[in-house]
Amino acid sequence: MKLTPNPEKAMIALSIGDPTVFGNLPTDACVLKALKDAVESARYNGYAPSIGYQKSREAVANFYNSSLAPLEAKDVVLTSGCSQAIELCISVLSNPGDNILIPCPGFSLYKTIALSIGVQVKLYNLLPERSWEVDLEHLESLVDEQTTCLVLTNPSNPCGSVFSKEHLEGILKVASKHCLPILADEIYGDMVFPGCTYTSLATLSSDVPILSCGGLAKRWLVPGWRMGWILIHDRRDVFGSEIRKGLVKLTQLILGACTLVQGALESILQNTPQHFYDSTTSFLKANAEICFKELSTVPGLTPIMPSGAMYFMVGIDIDHFPGMKNDVEFTERLVTEQSVFCLPTSAFDYPNFFRIVVTVPEKLMVEACVRIRLFCQQHYLPHRADSSELDQ
Amino acid sequence: MKLTPNPEKAMIALSIGDPTVFGNLPTDACVLKALKDAVESARYNGYAPSIGYQKSREAVANFYNSSLAPLEAKDVVLTSGCSQAIELCISVLSNPGDNILIPCPGFSLYKTIALSIGVQVKLYNLLPERSWEVDLEHLESLVDEQTTCLVLTNPSNPCGSVFSKEHLEGILKVASKHCLPILADEIYGDMVFPGCTYTSLATLSSDVPILSCGGLAKRWLVPGWRMGWILIHDRRDVFGSEIRKGLVKLTQLILGACTLVQGALESILQNTPQHFYDSTTSFLKANAEICFKELSTVPGLTPIMPSGAMYFMVGIDIDHFPGMKNDVEFTERLVTEQSVFCLPTSAFDYPNFFRIVVTVPEKLMVEACVRIRLFCQQHYLPHRADSSELDQ
Repeated sequence: MKLTPNPEKAMIALSIGDPTVFGNLPTDACVLKALKDAVESARYNGYAPSIGYQKSREAVANFYNSSLAPLEAKDVVLTSGCSQAIELCISVLSNPGDNILIPCPGFSLYKTIALSIGVQVKLYNLLPERSWEVDLEHLESLVDEQTTCLVLTNPSNPCGSVFSKEHLEGILKVASKHCLPILADEIYGDMVFPGCTYTSLATLSSDVPILSCGGLAKRWLVPGWRMGWILIHDRRDVFGSEIRKGLVKLTQLILGACTLVQGALESILQNTPQHFYDSTTSFLKANAEICFKELSTVPGLTPIMPSGAMYFMVGIDIDHFPGMKNDVEFTERLVTEQSVFCLPTSAFDYPNFFRIVVTVPEKLMVEACVRIRLFCQQHYLPHRADSSELDQ
Repeated sequence: MKLTPNPEKAMIALSIGDPTVFGNLPTDACVLKALKDAVESARYNGYAPSIGYQKSREAVANFYNSSLAPLEAKDVVLTSGCSQAIELCISVLSNPGDNILIPCPGFSLYKTIALSIGVQVKLYNLLPERSWEVDLEHLESLVDEQTTCLVLTNPSNPCGSVFSKEHLEGILKVASKHCLPILADEIYGDMVFPGCTYTSLATLSSDVPILSCGGLAKRWLVPGWRMGWILIHDRRDVFGSEIRKGLVKLTQLILGACTLVQGALESILQNTPQHFYDSTTSFLKANAEICFKELSTVPGLTPIMPSGAMYFMVGIDIDHFPGMKNDVEFTERLVTEQSVFCLPTSAFDYPNFFRIVVTVPEKLMVEACVRIRLFCQQHYLPHRADSSELDQ
């Protein structure tokens, strides 16, 4: 979109899924120190194995290992960011002509990657009225002979939702019934608001093979470092050796993560203090609460309180905003009139919501909400824009 | 290969294309300092644009800009290593069913990448008797309607050859005649022995569009950092906007290079002292000369003196080594008897040579040559192993 913001109001971008842009959420000092140590050691300048240094894979395995979902170094593949992790997983599970099930609304990368290799996507519905839980019936109805993978994003981008253990069990039941592997995009794993519980999918199933994708990007607030990983959970050995071998082969194409970051990984995972994680999630929750409080009394908007990640979804009663035919036009006008930019959820194949990123400084969050309220007050018509009453 | 080296001799691996493994070729101190500064600044933790920071692209453009082949930031795409650069170039130029021309012997990645996206390869011959120049007639004979790209590696892996200006002009003539874009793999660009001249392909043509791939890996001796780039040379605008747009789109799939390395790039390119580059190439030349001197008097071997990169090719008169039917068996026996590992050139789709990496410490280089001589002396038969005289 090429839009001119209102020159009288400073631009507030609530659209960017990069927690570092405002400078208010720096990574922990020990993360930077680990990286500097890795550089100084001069031990991490050569090629690493294409799936990552053994020691770094071990560090990731130790960090995520649990009695319910045991992990060893051999179950870890390091990648150039979580995006490459997702690309490798979709590629290794699917051939051209196959299809994968992806959430709607959902992160657009799944579809982009799938289509780029000739794999079709089928969108399963998330239900806003149930805090964006999966419509399990709809999900199951989409499975066919060509379905190779169910993609699950938890916590969710763009919804900020965090599934309960019970709901995850419901999803696993469908996957189990249809022998469907799951690509669990858990890049926001553990990044949930105080008081909310995150359950990693693999701890709930021993029969459904799960490729869990994650990385340093969000929880450690260093998305540019491109450090991602795949955790292979396959206790019943459903994948056999094929999927593991396939992943190794795919990593050999362009190799993976920067060796310096790999070299720092053990120290980062071991030394990042709990209060760093806590302070991030407390901040995000506080901002989300500001949004919810401010926007829930705005005419024409239906904010849905998130439980994690860094996102906040707001429904638009678009019929009550004459002259704006959908979320794209709504968010465009919001830019030109109030210099506030929110991402229209058409970007996620879902209409008439907008997504707010709640990483901005509190003052901007408040100011943005004030402007959104003003915008809605100026444009909201209590009666539907297309109702006959308008003609009177 | 799973082989047991001779337990009485320490293993010498001459097979690894990683200049850092022996510790004798460290990168320059200013390269490490640039990286530490980038970490300390805490300015390079967020996402960069998918094609790289503008400032870093500018730095690369300035470094390679010349009056004969002008470059601006807009002509530079930063990638996760030179491998991703090559992958993006092959992908953007070709559709499934197309074919590309690749050198034989040549780096195996071109074929691996091409086949992974349904693109066929046609191998054009390099001529050992002409210091691995391209057989231009053979090259031209391979071009057909489906040919989308000529891949040229200069300086060459595995040959260590460096093409003269005149020879490059001959190649360009073929490309120009058939309107064939060139993917110039110039990762070893400028890495030529003292006394030898390297000419970057793009300085010799204004009508053939050239995608030059490079990176920090070899010349700056940090292959693990995964910092690569594509330089788009297209002065006649043959590509139009399609190829540039396509490259941008492809970079968005998994994003590119680690932002920390991108942040250090300007300083690395500006501050690395000339003596660092010179000392590397002098060392490589000295080692290559040791190899050449030692091996040119070994019965059954035909070493070909390289002019650049880090490789050395040695021909095997395989008919004179009874019991070894090809380069693979020759190099296997060399491991089990002499604990010296050289890569058989079957790995490069080329028979009966082996490749030596000349980055090992001088002492090991000498020792390896002594053992190779011993091995050949023990197995060489002056008469062809299959000649009738053997039956007498």
